[in-house]
Amino acid sequence: MIKVGIVGGTGYTGVELLRILSTHPDVTLTAITSRKEDGLPVADMYPSLRGKVALAFSAPDKANLTECDVVFFATPHGVAMAQAQELLAAGVKVIDLAADFRLQDVAQFEKWYGIPHTCTDVLKEAVYGLPELNRESIKSARVIGNPGCYPTTMQLGYAPLLKADVIDATSLIADCKSGVSGAGRKAEIGILFSETSDSFKAYGVSGHRHTPETTEQLQRLTKQDVELLFTPHLVPMIRGMHSTLYARLTRDISNEELQALFIEAYKDEPFVDVMPFGAHPETRSTRASNMLRLALHRPNNGKTVIILVVQDNLVKGASGQAVQCMNLMFGLEETTGLHHVPVMP
Amino acid sequence: MIKVGIVGGTGYTGVELLRILSTHPDVTLTAITSRKEDGLPVADMYPSLRGKVALAFSAPDKANLTECDVVFFATPHGVAMAQAQELLAAGVKVIDLAADFRLQDVAQFEKWYGIPHTCTDVLKEAVYGLPELNRESIKSARVIGNPGCYPTTMQLGYAPLLKADVIDATSLIADCKSGVSGAGRKAEIGILFSETSDSFKAYGVSGHRHTPETTEQLQRLTKQDVELLFTPHLVPMIRGMHSTLYARLTRDISNEELQALFIEAYKDEPFVDVMPFGAHPETRSTRASNMLRLALHRPNNGKTVIILVVQDNLVKGASGQAVQCMNLMFGLEETTGLHHVPVMP
Amino acid sequence: MIKVGIVGGTGYTGVELLRILSTHPDVTLTAITSRKEDGLPVADMYPSLRGKVALAFSAPDKANLTECDVVFFATPHGVAMAQAQELLAAGVKVIDLAADFRLQDVAQFEKWYGIPHTCTDVLKEAVYGLPELNRESIKSARVIGNPGCYPTTMQLGYAPLLKADVIDATSLIADCKSGVSGAGRKAEIGILFSETSDSFKAYGVSGHRHTPETTEQLQRLTKQDVELLFTPHLVPMIRGMHSTLYARLTRDISNEELQALFIEAYKDEPFVDVMPFGAHPETRSTRASNMLRLALHRPNNGKTVIILVVQDNLVKGASGQAVQCMNLMFGLEETTGLHHVPVMP
Amino acid sequence: MIKVGIVGGTGYTGVELLRILSTHPDVTLTAITSRKEDGLPVADMYPSLRGKVALAFSAPDKANLTECDVVFFATPHGVAMAQAQELLAAGVKVIDLAADFRLQDVAQFEKWYGIPHTCTDVLKEAVYGLPELNRESIKSARVIGNPGCYPTTMQLGYAPLLKADVIDATSLIADCKSGVSGAGRKAEIGILFSETSDSFKAYGVSGHRHTPETTEQLQRLTKQDVELLFTPHLVPMIRGMHSTLYARLTRDISNEELQALFIEAYKDEPFVDVMPFGAHPETRSTRASNMLRLALHRPNNGKTVIILVVQDNLVKGASGQAVQCMNLMFGLEETTGLHHVPVMP
Repeated sequence: MIKVGIVGGTGYTGVELLRILSTHPDVTLTAITSRKEDGLPVADMYPSLRGKVALAFSAPDKANLTECDVVFFATPHGVAMAQAQELLAAGVKVIDLAADFRLQDVAQFEKWYGIPHTCTDVLKEAVYGLPELNRESIKSARVIGNPGCYPTTMQLGYAPLLKADVIDATSLIADCKSGVSGAGRKAEIGILFSETSDSFKAYGVSGHRHTPETTEQLQRLTKQDVELLFTPHLVPMIRGMHSTLYARLTRDISNEELQALFIEAYKDEPFVDVMPFGAHPETRSTRASNMLRLALHRPNNGKTVIILVVQDNLVKGASGQAVQCMNLMFGLEETTGLHHVPVMP
Repeated sequence: MIKVGIVGGTGYTGVELLRILSTHPDVTLTAITSRKEDGLPVADMYPSLRGKVALAFSAPDKANLTECDVVFFATPHGVAMAQAQELLAAGVKVIDLAADFRLQDVAQFEKWYGIPHTCTDVLKEAVYGLPELNRESIKSARVIGNPGCYPTTMQLGYAPLLKADVIDATSLIADCKSGVSGAGRKAEIGILFSETSDSFKAYGVSGHRHTPETTEQLQRLTKQDVELLFTPHLVPMIRGMHSTLYARLTRDISNEELQALFIEAYKDEPFVDVMPFGAHPETRSTRASNMLRLALHRPNNGKTVIILVVQDNLVKGASGQAVQCMNLMFGLEETTGLHHVPVMP
Repeated sequence: MIKVGIVGGTGYTGVELLRILSTHPDVTLTAITSRKEDGLPVADMYPSLRGKVALAFSAPDKANLTECDVVFFATPHGVAMAQAQELLAAGVKVIDLAADFRLQDVAQFEKWYGIPHTCTDVLKEAVYGLPELNRESIKSARVIGNPGCYPTTMQLGYAPLLKADVIDATSLIADCKSGVSGAGRKAEIGILFSETSDSFKAYGVSGHRHTPETTEQLQRLTKQDVELLFTPHLVPMIRGMHSTLYARLTRDISNEELQALFIEAYKDEPFVDVMPFGAHPETRSTRASNMLRLALHRPNNGKTVIILVVQDNLVKGASGQAVQCMNLMFGLEETTGLHHVPVMP
Repeated sequence: MIKVGIVGGTGYTGVELLRILSTHPDVTLTAITSRKEDGLPVADMYPSLRGKVALAFSAPDKANLTECDVVFFATPHGVAMAQAQELLAAGVKVIDLAADFRLQDVAQFEKWYGIPHTCTDVLKEAVYGLPELNRESIKSARVIGNPGCYPTTMQLGYAPLLKADVIDATSLIADCKSGVSGAGRKAEIGILFSETSDSFKAYGVSGHRHTPETTEQLQRLTKQDVELLFTPHLVPMIRGMHSTLYARLTRDISNEELQALFIEAYKDEPFVDVMPFGAHPETRSTRASNMLRLALHRPNNGKTVIILVVQDNLVKGASGQAVQCMNLMFGLEETTGLHHVPVMP
């Protein structure tokens, strides 16, 4: 059994890790830290876990994380980089769900996150945890930078087209929409029910942290310069993410060939579902599961291809993907503990 | 492996059966009928099941239901009673999620459902499928009338008090609230998003079919005459049911004794969670799981006890309970295939 | 023109006052205070008011409230009582939307609100601002305690029955449901979108501040002792309140007579709509308007009458009612500025 | 007083016309037709209108529409063109909220709407009812094709840029999101609460009727060939529309100059609000009002300008705009009856 620790178990990615890991057959939940909730049974904060998770939160210093086999950081950025070195030294693997180990370009990290990177040694060996594009490196990684939610959809949507070199990488437009849980479990007016329900808006249009992350990763797939316009929006739903990706085709290619690129790219992927050409995936078709679904469109058979991508932002966009990485890192079947059927309706 | 057939797999209880049964370790999904969708792969109608359910709908006459071990009816009332006899004769067990086998009082059935009961022979042997109150009979049953969603909450909420004879059974008030999925998947204006979202209303206040069903069952638990006032309401949420049950205490009893009645009644129940006295259970704490949670209140230590009960109306209130019955009927561990952790947030 | 000041214009009752008063033909918005937002144009915080409200927030000490004709307090309890005396001395009328001037029983106030009442002199002359039950007193009042949202529905629902002495006042049960805006505009986890959406729960079941307020007012209508069980619930909708009121009839009375009691009581009321016997009012039928609607039910022609009451908690339940009081206090037509047609869908 | 008839008053644009017109100071509601609901008081179907609209539905043949001054068609396409000629002959003006008089290109109409256009004579004189771009023609029009909801946002968003000739008209991308009320009040499974709530999807990506309408109108503003990619999405909210419009700049221009183009274009418009550069308009800031708000963005000061546009799809996107046209046609102040302050929260 893999002994698992979770740092920061009180947020949405934390409780989602608990939901997934509490039924994972090869995992023992060993420690969950929260400075503020030290001693509180997890199920007292999250009654959904009553009878499922017996653990209590413990203060970080009491948690004995170094006795775990792997520690997930479900924390704001800046936390994992402060503790990674000690854990690695003790032989503990690290999976950070925040941004500390996502961007290899330290200057970009410091610009967008506004803090110095204090752990660049570890960053160098960190592996970007998107299994569909990075599986082999993940298997042997000691530390994982788990992808952001939006970047997961953009990369898996654009990758087959960039690899096949059939689109103009300099004019990518990603119009993305996220459920409110993506903003986290924070006491902020802007994400109150009465502020976000029955309304819709864009945010961060002039610049968002997920742009440099996505650009850095997409750049690895093409020799063209990647220029990405990324526009996030807030949808009045709890979970779910829908990315509408636009790309200009640079050469003659039939719709069948386009579809074949995706079928081929993802034919062995357990968590990527290429839907029929022209389908309209709904976010709810992935709710509470690790599936990502996508479908291609080409209006008027013109020069622009549109890729519609959906996922559950808390699962494939965060905690599920992290567990998928863990499975790879520990030599388990990649889908272990991730067989949830999406909840519909 | 148990060969399972589902009649009427296109509604919400049908697709919920599919969600649950597709990962049930002892079940083979054998047939799903739909006259209208004959030949259509189930996953084409419900993309959430892509990769999870390979079956296609088949017309009832082609479905060979008699080769199944058990058939679930996820249909409107009147369907199961037309087919039960033939299935039973062929050795197939029957679990009806509609009302055909719920009410032993045929006159009540015919009054509230407006059709003659054409299968009273089978009705006589039918067992009311509420395991917590009826477990032994379910184990040996050939045909199950699966409880209504509201009645499940009312019975499990009132039962310990009625059995202990500490409340006035003639003045029960059940103020109940249901998510919209309880109204089914029907093309009706009244349950459109734009009609039900951001609003709240009562319905059926002057009389509802779940009153006679609940009364008949509660009457089995007490020598008093049961008089129940049941007021259903529609909540702008998909899943979830919350029943606020009021009862007048008829003798001196402390809050600790009240709580102990519930603890004792449900101490071995895997799907009933008695929360601490004074807790406020949320419907989401049961979302997509077979759990029912309840908590007691007694304002001002007065004469009225309030029982708050929550469940997912599609799971413990319908399809999960039906699978729980199936497990019992086939000698399986009662919780098999029902280990879903509630989805939160 | 009436010069109006608003203390605490940043919350939901404050912005709702602005929405209503900005088109009120006899009002000049003169001052809106907010210590925190001093200098910020109101429309910068609430873009819905762009082009409608030109005023900026000003710090309380700069606001010259004593030059107003009337000041509304859209603040937490405790604020109005600290300022009322000075305003009254300057000839300014006061309408408090919080609880400072609602409860004549000071001990009850101090018990439920946890602070000493520092302005009992003013409290003595304060008038409870429910025009349908208190119109004449309001007309001549200098200071108004504007009713709570829940109490408005409970009083208008029970009043005709208590006055006619046809129900048992000692066994009232009010099962009430409110939209989330009733909890205010506060940075609290419990009212986040991801916490309250797609879920339902009760709260404050063991005791709620609106119970003593309602009891004190209902007691004025009957010689019986009033005993009220009040159970509030949170509905995943922004605005709207639905109260399901239960009462035991104490004498023979026909449904027609019951209905006639309500028709008679409210026949001249512009903001109370008695719907046909047996109707199911929806909260949305009052959305963004000052209307309160109600309908009677009597299941099985039994001993219990049910009154269903709906309103918009921010309008008739708060800011609209306050403006209705203001109209009366200044000798205007009671409906002035309150002609909004409910927004549906 | 203007005598107004409404054909098809049972849908959402119909009831929204009623909400607006019932408080319009210069209008007498004269007739509302519905074949199915003949004789039913409008307020029985829509309790929100109780006390506000006394009219009953009447069958079309009894409605005496020819005695009206103007008739609104809040019907599916095909209805207005069958009745327009007779009404015009009787001196009645016609405002069609459907598509019959929107597209001057009959072939496009017949391709996208699948029926022959039977009233091309009237079509020739019909005026496209977008006051901000077409005010003078509307004033003298006898028949109005009221714009579609999406086209209103796209035209008002792109117009200043096309007129100034600073963008590439051949690569417009409009990623648009609409509330569910845009789909109408129809008994269809796809728009049930349980199907659309807590989910998000695109629809009609490969082709939508609003593309030819928008293209035809935009083409009037530029000598370039207009090529528009329009991607509609469904948002789980009742009202509201958000269009995220992308355009490639074709010449050097500062952000201040861009902003100035919009300020100048709309400086006298009562219903278009140009927000500060970089703002993020929310749909709720226009809820239940005739306002449209927009804001410009230019990520990285690059070659692409983004225009965010919001409106209430049932008001500025439909019924409010139709009343705005009516005001112009009858020589009234354009804003008459349209002073609603947006409802927030």
